[in-house]
Amino acid sequence: MNKVEHIGIAVQDLEKANLIYTQILGTEPYKSEQVTSEKVITSFFQCGESKIELLAATDETSVIAAFIQKRGEGLHHIAFSVDDIEAEMSRLKQAGFTLLSETPKPGADNKLICFVHPKDASGVLIELCQEKTSF
Amino acid sequence: MNKVEHIGIAVQDLEKANLIYTQILGTEPYKSEQVTSEKVITSFFQCGESKIELLAATDETSVIAAFIQKRGEGLHHIAFSVDDIEAEMSRLKQAGFTLLSETPKPGADNKLICFVHPKDASGVLIELCQEKTSF
Repeated sequence: MNKVEHIGIAVQDLEKANLIYTQILGTEPYKSEQVTSEKVITSFFQCGESKIELLAATDETSVIAAFIQKRGEGLHHIAFSVDDIEAEMSRLKQAGFTLLSETPKPGADNKLICFVHPKDASGVLIELCQEKTSF
Repeated sequence: MNKVEHIGIAVQDLEKANLIYTQILGTEPYKSEQVTSEKVITSFFQCGESKIELLAATDETSVIAAFIQKRGEGLHHIAFSVDDIEAEMSRLKQAGFTLLSETPKPGADNKLICFVHPKDASGVLIELCQEKTSF
């Protein structure tokens, strides 16, 4: 794992949370992106080499809506940047970790992503992400 | 806020979690430290410019024990590195954020720290931390 790529925070109201995190971080979100497949809308703030990703549900069937209903707003996942997501997925699978997809999926911010089940990581939802490259 | 200084994860069993995060991150913890005032024992892993801090309770009256009892193991807080913690505390207080201490407190890893109440930060417990300097 090269670095903390981003920290995902589940929020109820993206506009309100944008104002809060603009005040905390002293910088405005540099982009907003809708991930239709996940039924979320996101905002990204840069902080050092990492990003803060705010996630709000666009539909009540979104996993973010379910998370907030169960646990309230708050920290949702950590994403680690990797050079070769398939190699890292294979390494973790062999070490006994449960991956939430068999192959990398397209994520926000031009990434290929895969999640590791929280039951194997002390209750933390971990995302691996690799920058997409064009061939 | 200069960077994500660390991400705190509440764990039940520090030895077990050390093994898990050594596998995930591909690196061993570089130190363990007991913070008597908080009744926790911690492990630190480096990941890029940030750290992963595992926190286990050393006593059932620790806030980490209470957190795990209520929510289970998982993401506990984000710490942001600041140059001048008193200036940041004053800035956030004036912006209406509730701080959990009036003055900076000594924290793990040779830091001065202050927490912002999660109710003001979309359910996220936020720590400000400044490296202690010797005068």
